[in-house]
Amino acid sequence: MDRLHVVIVGAGFGGLAAARELADAPVDVTLVDQNNFHTFQPLLYQVATSGLASADVAYPVRGSAARQENLAFRQATVIGADLDARVLHLQHPEHEVEDLTYDHLVVAAGATTNTFGIPGVDHHGFPLYNLADAVRLRNHVLERFEAADADPSLMDDGALTFVVVGGGPTGVEVAGALTELFQVVLRKDFRQLDVDRARVVLVEMQDQLLGPFSPVSQAHAREALTQRGVEVRTGVQVARVRANRVTLADGEELAAHTLVWAAGVKANPIGAALGLRTGRAGRIEVGPDLAVSDHPGVWAIGDVAAIVDGRGRDGTLLPQLAPVAIQSGRHVARQICCVAAGQAPPRSPFRYRDKGTMATIGRSRAVAELPFGIRLRGFPAWLAWLGLHLLMLAGFRNRISVFANWFWNWLTYDRGPRLIFRSRPRADD
Amino acid sequence: MDRLHVVIVGAGFGGLAAARELADAPVDVTLVDQNNFHTFQPLLYQVATSGLASADVAYPVRGSAARQENLAFRQATVIGADLDARVLHLQHPEHEVEDLTYDHLVVAAGATTNTFGIPGVDHHGFPLYNLADAVRLRNHVLERFEAADADPSLMDDGALTFVVVGGGPTGVEVAGALTELFQVVLRKDFRQLDVDRARVVLVEMQDQLLGPFSPVSQAHAREALTQRGVEVRTGVQVARVRANRVTLADGEELAAHTLVWAAGVKANPIGAALGLRTGRAGRIEVGPDLAVSDHPGVWAIGDVAAIVDGRGRDGTLLPQLAPVAIQSGRHVARQICCVAAGQAPPRSPFRYRDKGTMATIGRSRAVAELPFGIRLRGFPAWLAWLGLHLLMLAGFRNRISVFANWFWNWLTYDRGPRLIFRSRPRADD
Repeated sequence: MDRLHVVIVGAGFGGLAAARELADAPVDVTLVDQNNFHTFQPLLYQVATSGLASADVAYPVRGSAARQENLAFRQATVIGADLDARVLHLQHPEHEVEDLTYDHLVVAAGATTNTFGIPGVDHHGFPLYNLADAVRLRNHVLERFEAADADPSLMDDGALTFVVVGGGPTGVEVAGALTELFQVVLRKDFRQLDVDRARVVLVEMQDQLLGPFSPVSQAHAREALTQRGVEVRTGVQVARVRANRVTLADGEELAAHTLVWAAGVKANPIGAALGLRTGRAGRIEVGPDLAVSDHPGVWAIGDVAAIVDGRGRDGTLLPQLAPVAIQSGRHVARQICCVAAGQAPPRSPFRYRDKGTMATIGRSRAVAELPFGIRLRGFPAWLAWLGLHLLMLAGFRNRISVFANWFWNWLTYDRGPRLIFRSRPRADD
Repeated sequence: MDRLHVVIVGAGFGGLAAARELADAPVDVTLVDQNNFHTFQPLLYQVATSGLASADVAYPVRGSAARQENLAFRQATVIGADLDARVLHLQHPEHEVEDLTYDHLVVAAGATTNTFGIPGVDHHGFPLYNLADAVRLRNHVLERFEAADADPSLMDDGALTFVVVGGGPTGVEVAGALTELFQVVLRKDFRQLDVDRARVVLVEMQDQLLGPFSPVSQAHAREALTQRGVEVRTGVQVARVRANRVTLADGEELAAHTLVWAAGVKANPIGAALGLRTGRAGRIEVGPDLAVSDHPGVWAIGDVAAIVDGRGRDGTLLPQLAPVAIQSGRHVARQICCVAAGQAPPRSPFRYRDKGTMATIGRSRAVAELPFGIRLRGFPAWLAWLGLHLLMLAGFRNRISVFANWFWNWLTYDRGPRLIFRSRPRADD
């Protein structure tokens, strides 16, 4: 029997976990991603706030492939498929098209920003979902300070007001990191500027920050942010965004040149493009074993999949978080392993183990909710957050670099990579 | 008496050195650069060949300004000046215009690539003079491998042939680092590709590489490069460049998708734009004290200045190298210090102390020519090169990061930041 060919679309947490779980299986694996690197999304906010360099949170996929005999990589975009013939159509960056046949297709294409159709967000908002987003936000933030330094009257127009929308972990983390950047680093960098006038406004439509956390953690996060100067506005939505104004649903208008959009994601539209049935927020419908019904050999995992929470809550979908992606990727890989070993597909249902959630709130502060009711906050939570994220980072080198950077930042109150740098391609590139 | 205002245009080696030398002088200093960071140009070739991350060779100028009381910074481009009124016209990135009055103007705007009008080089060549150049080349090189992996027939068209033009230190270093990247890293990354077919061709119009070095060092460099698989072509010029072909003056046509242009620089055109008298390759004419005649208070240093070598060789200009820039920057700063202290300008002539030159040729190999006839090659030269460049790097953090990266690369034969990443701005940015 020929070796099975498993094609995995997406080199995020889910796709990489699936690929690694297949390392010893008698299959050939091809990982497809439009970038040649895996992005460690939980630390993108630190790139956006000059705490880490972009290379620190990016890990070359071929670094994994080089160490795994049965793993190949294709830098390409999926432009379609013939699911009956089990052929995937790829487009390479320079427009060559390639047909890739597969026995198993694992769709792990992740999510993208959801702006919920709020006017102006698509155009003016800064999402924080991929590496380009993070670098773009970093450039923009630093440019606001350069502009205000050259012409302080711009501050009256909101040049140094930064509105962060979304009170989940990303919003909380970016708001905390922004105030810290301003107070700790840019205050020294811009001595002639009244940096105290820089504002960070965190807007959340629910009444509490960090929705899924316990009230104690929620209150701690709000208090820590407020103490550090973040203006927290809960229970209000953004109604409209222009280049220099953010209008809230209660009519308030904030003069602000920056809107960070951390309010929600929707599934990568690949599901619909492949003709798969999609449900809420475009997520691909999967069975309890994460197989896509009607299309034998097709699986979906992570953010792109509508995985029903099997723990009793009727029909609730699992959250779009890294641990879900990793665990679902491993689950599908194990199903495929069985088939490759000549067994019938076990069709065993995926069970998510919730290992807790965490969010940092700037220097030395965090909240963490772990299994068995363990709740940490303040410095211990922050240490737990650091340790966990170092462990999760792909690549030993990146771990060392991130650790060294964190230690340096913590020790010196410095931020090294506060660079305004765009790598514009030339016209003919 | 009011404090003198010294405006320095350019935050390269020369501009930074001048600014630092003025730290204790009773003057106010404004450093102007179009980027908010200083670029450590000698290591750009390592960014281009995935050895270092872009943040490793960029140091935020405001990091210097934060530590130096009398130093301010403006991120802006010089668009003109009224030299009689001593006013400099700046344009900020968002197009606001600012007039900056000065008592002393130090032009330290560096150089730019000189393509000598050879057809196609402007359009298809990859220069290696600033950070954007380095990242663009890195992306391009890695993309050639991704493309060839997806379609090996592209190799016949030259997808994996890399022509480096210019046998000076930059050309030698980039050629050596490219072969090393291919043989040590990409061979593992692209297991399905015959990476041995990748070619690096180094073209130099003179008969020897490393023109200013001794024949012994020249021979060593050629031998080391050849040993590592670089095809060295001396005594021949490039006649014409197309997207996938490089035509040499002797009629040979190389199928190559990449031309690295390291064959020469010319002065930043700012001299002519300001109405200053320029000489060879656009360099601003200066007196022996580096003052620009006819324009009291204007000085020029480093690559942009036509500094006559005072060591006897009639009319020869000093080379466009970092040590010249640094020493000339300090010299001008000391002249200005005297004036600020109320003394007459000393008009003392600038004397360049040649502290030697070095070039690496990949892993563990280099040539170095130091004063007193000391010549090193091989491993000792490589260690000397490493040490000197670590010392020269601006910023303790960058030093640590570069050192750690080098140690890692040397130990593991890995290259971390082999990322294809462009931080494209959004349309409205």
